[in-house]
Amino acid sequence: MEEFSIINLFLVLLAAWFGGALATKLGYPAILGELIIGIILGPALLGFIDQSRTVMVIAEVGIILLMVYIGMEIDFRDLGKASWAGLLAAIGGFIVPFGLGFYTITAFGGTEMSALFVAIAVGVTSLATKSRILVDLKLLNTRIAYVLMAGALISDTLALVIFAGIVSFADVGVIDILGLLLVAGKAILFFIVTAFIGIKILPLLLGYFEKAGIKSSTLYFTLILIIAFGFAELAELAGMHSILGAFLAGLFIRDGVFPKNVAKEVHKTFYDVSIGFMAPIFFVTAGFQVSLAVFETDLLLLVVVIFVAMFGKIVGTALFYLPSGYGWREGITVGAGMNGRGAVEIIIAGIGLEMGIINQDIFSILVFMAIFTTTTVPFLLKWTTSWLRKRGELVQVDSRSGYLILGINPVSLILANQLKENSKVIFIDNNKELSLQANKEGFISVHGNALKEEILEEAQAAKVNTFISMTGNSEVNLLAAQIARETFLVPNNYVMISPNEDGAGVDVLDTIKASTIFAMKFSLDEWIHIITTKAYIDTKELVEEEIISTRAWVKLFMENNENIMPIVIIGIDGGKRPFQYDDVLVKGEKVYYFKAK
Amino acid sequence: MEEFSIINLFLVLLAAWFGGALATKLGYPAILGELIIGIILGPALLGFIDQSRTVMVIAEVGIILLMVYIGMEIDFRDLGKASWAGLLAAIGGFIVPFGLGFYTITAFGGTEMSALFVAIAVGVTSLATKSRILVDLKLLNTRIAYVLMAGALISDTLALVIFAGIVSFADVGVIDILGLLLVAGKAILFFIVTAFIGIKILPLLLGYFEKAGIKSSTLYFTLILIIAFGFAELAELAGMHSILGAFLAGLFIRDGVFPKNVAKEVHKTFYDVSIGFMAPIFFVTAGFQVSLAVFETDLLLLVVVIFVAMFGKIVGTALFYLPSGYGWREGITVGAGMNGRGAVEIIIAGIGLEMGIINQDIFSILVFMAIFTTTTVPFLLKWTTSWLRKRGELVQVDSRSGYLILGINPVSLILANQLKENSKVIFIDNNKELSLQANKEGFISVHGNALKEEILEEAQAAKVNTFISMTGNSEVNLLAAQIARETFLVPNNYVMISPNEDGAGVDVLDTIKASTIFAMKFSLDEWIHIITTKAYIDTKELVEEEIISTRAWVKLFMENNENIMPIVIIGIDGGKRPFQYDDVLVKGEKVYYFKAK
Repeated sequence: MEEFSIINLFLVLLAAWFGGALATKLGYPAILGELIIGIILGPALLGFIDQSRTVMVIAEVGIILLMVYIGMEIDFRDLGKASWAGLLAAIGGFIVPFGLGFYTITAFGGTEMSALFVAIAVGVTSLATKSRILVDLKLLNTRIAYVLMAGALISDTLALVIFAGIVSFADVGVIDILGLLLVAGKAILFFIVTAFIGIKILPLLLGYFEKAGIKSSTLYFTLILIIAFGFAELAELAGMHSILGAFLAGLFIRDGVFPKNVAKEVHKTFYDVSIGFMAPIFFVTAGFQVSLAVFETDLLLLVVVIFVAMFGKIVGTALFYLPSGYGWREGITVGAGMNGRGAVEIIIAGIGLEMGIINQDIFSILVFMAIFTTTTVPFLLKWTTSWLRKRGELVQVDSRSGYLILGINPVSLILANQLKENSKVIFIDNNKELSLQANKEGFISVHGNALKEEILEEAQAAKVNTFISMTGNSEVNLLAAQIARETFLVPNNYVMISPNEDGAGVDVLDTIKASTIFAMKFSLDEWIHIITTKAYIDTKELVEEEIISTRAWVKLFMENNENIMPIVIIGIDGGKRPFQYDDVLVKGEKVYYFKAK
Repeated sequence: MEEFSIINLFLVLLAAWFGGALATKLGYPAILGELIIGIILGPALLGFIDQSRTVMVIAEVGIILLMVYIGMEIDFRDLGKASWAGLLAAIGGFIVPFGLGFYTITAFGGTEMSALFVAIAVGVTSLATKSRILVDLKLLNTRIAYVLMAGALISDTLALVIFAGIVSFADVGVIDILGLLLVAGKAILFFIVTAFIGIKILPLLLGYFEKAGIKSSTLYFTLILIIAFGFAELAELAGMHSILGAFLAGLFIRDGVFPKNVAKEVHKTFYDVSIGFMAPIFFVTAGFQVSLAVFETDLLLLVVVIFVAMFGKIVGTALFYLPSGYGWREGITVGAGMNGRGAVEIIIAGIGLEMGIINQDIFSILVFMAIFTTTTVPFLLKWTTSWLRKRGELVQVDSRSGYLILGINPVSLILANQLKENSKVIFIDNNKELSLQANKEGFISVHGNALKEEILEEAQAAKVNTFISMTGNSEVNLLAAQIARETFLVPNNYVMISPNEDGAGVDVLDTIKASTIFAMKFSLDEWIHIITTKAYIDTKELVEEEIISTRAWVKLFMENNENIMPIVIIGIDGGKRPFQYDDVLVKGEKVYYFKAK
């Protein structure tokens, strides 16, 4: 095993880590830094590192695992929810750059096959770049975010299917009707066989596992690896590329099919191994294969490809987006958001290079195109969204919406009455009379133990946006928030913590990623007394500071020994949100609060 | 990348899975099945699969990751606890077979270098085989188990260090004083550099990470990979083998150094990737390299090596064990338990083969020796321990001991008064008066919130064997048990669940691996009333059934509508243990219980 090189593996991984960390720090996807560091340290520029066979094998296996992971990330239900607008954006954002890309390469004298590869590469949309930017720009609850994510999903799925088709033909060469039928037949057979295994055999196998009491997620991890490599091989046998098989294998890994928690743990391992180990090695080595000569020899083509990729993506998306009725400005914004290229594009370009369909120049152009387009996404998206925001056209939507409040009491009822103006509020309490009382006040109220999943399910925990636990028992609050978070994936969890809960509370809050309601420890008993004896004044206070954290705002009162209960923040647009620890107040917002007399 | 073969990877992993699962089902370590299936399907027998370069690289990386994992598993504190007896067993169990092995090979005409490799291989003890067998034979709390584990740890560490030394010399060839000094100097330098990085640089780096708010365990996983590959390379540079570097890197991954939960998650990922993916591929390919011809050409040597390995290990251990004063019978039992060979031996043999120090025949003999010795461990250990058991010489020890009870109330005090006869009992309650009362009754009692780690720490949660949460609030009980289990690794957790806790309780119990105290839902309020009004009869009942689960025992009363509180089980030896769900009663044991009038 003379070619096994640890030092090379070490250096490539170190470079990947460094590049990825730097990119992440600057708000970019890690892949960007990995590609660039590969270009800088590799043969293209400094020539410090090149690849060994070890690194090549790890990179190859890494692509397969990454495709499994990408497949895992796609939820058919999300695709279902994506609807009309997402589909339009995806199709427009794929077809237009695809067509332009194909035309460009043939116009520059490339082969049809290489033109098809470039066309796919410019058509693809990056999945990896999605969430961070959306969070940074506070877009997560906008319609744009939903369209973007759905669009990227559909566009990538589309791209992979078309890619598989192209690879099939690339092997066959000249196509006649018989050849066409053969290719199509093999592909269809492949999909039938994998679907049969995924839908029929896998559940049987898992059922057997469960009967046998196998709970070790490691065994499931191994099983999924076997399925992934098996599907990859089947794809090869069907004349398509192995990555398509791996991608399909990932699609079958669903929470519903696997025992509880197993899907989550396996997902984590796949993430660690692919994103944390093998895939970065692939991206760095992709950088190794880049040639800087293109800046001299093919500068025009480089510029044209980048232009075509950006123009095609943005204008194509906006054009096809028109029938959605959401306006061309939102279409352009969506196009700008989908303009990044990422893992899938680099993988496809790498395969094209490996198969000899595109040459090193085209490969290099595609890598630079990925780097350039991905770099511009945050800027473009920031401009376009602030443009929409200024025009008041940034539409907020949320497939999850509303509040689920645990514990019916005077305090939670006051909060709920504030919140119900904007959204639905649901209560849970195991006291039947209190439940009835909440019903009378016009709230949906579920009677039962909030620590039982059926009860949380009944109370629509899977559909609400925010879970607030407000019983007098901090431990119950924490445990319920944990279940809401981990089982029902409620994105926002606010927990009432009583003052004699001095320590563990905060620790647990951290691990379950919850926040403290009212941004302070809160004595429910005391405030119930204050409220029932009407010993309070309610008031609204305008925020004068440019920006102040809720915690700092509350502290100002605490330092004056004033006993307050800050209920909701009234946004500049009039919308109300609960006052909690993980929030900031900006100038012009108001806080509605009670003050004890 | 013409040699990248998915089908081969798929087949090898499938074979590994199948062999491993079968072996595990039969109560053997997975490695045994992996080796055997490699021999059967590989060139040695059927010739169905051989290795590709892909599989070779994955296997090589797999060894490194496995060594990191093995290093992670070793806790210096465990080594410290190991004491005299473990050290004696380790030394005797290593040196004697080492010497005999060396002599055998030279006597059969082998080179000194190959004799040294065989000597290490027969000297090594398997870590992987330890726990399952100990659990199966119910030995976990015996002195033998502690000696075995410590012995295996020390013996493996010893073997790896000596192995590193031998490899250093193997490279140099003929040794003069200068050469010797150079080799030793490089080795010492290696240990200094790695220790400096592990003890000084790593915590600095981690401190920086923590300041930067990095919590993603994936980033830590990548960091550890980099350190592992870096150490592996350093070891190579120092003239030792890469596996030693990887092993050392694993040693530095401690809970104390890494942020909370990170070490645990990284540990899990290393386990999944090594044990669940790459290492099995190595073991199957090790099987590929076996030649069955040794049964014809070198049968005598094969038999002698196996004999020397077993005789040397068992007799050597027993001999060196004598000064411990625990008797030669326990020494033989320990020797029988340490007789398995596993991952480390196969890795060392593989390296010897790769370096050309041993030939395929010797390699095959070492693999068969591993298979044979590992297969015999359960039988030998079963015989020897039942022999000890019959003679009443199976000494129970437990480095963790005693009970920690959350909640002071009449019920928990009754239980505690029963348990204190055999072991220490510590209470936690956040009511100061109750704490003082427990103190008066002669118990250690910590006053504070049991959900706070400091309080649990103070109450010696890290040292007790059993945590029993008995407050009237099931949620608090569950949350406390979870912390005890996950943070303090308390092996036994019993939780009181109240009758109106109908569902979630049992779910959570399962995930935190806790059991229900009294093997039923229990109304604390009702029983406090019964106890304070003395409305009960206390009685002992002899178990007549050959074997009956605690749950079934309790159900007999419930079916007759009798309200009982089963407090402790009195073992045949008179020892008392709490009555809880995950236990069985055997004929001759007694149950001490209260029955409501």
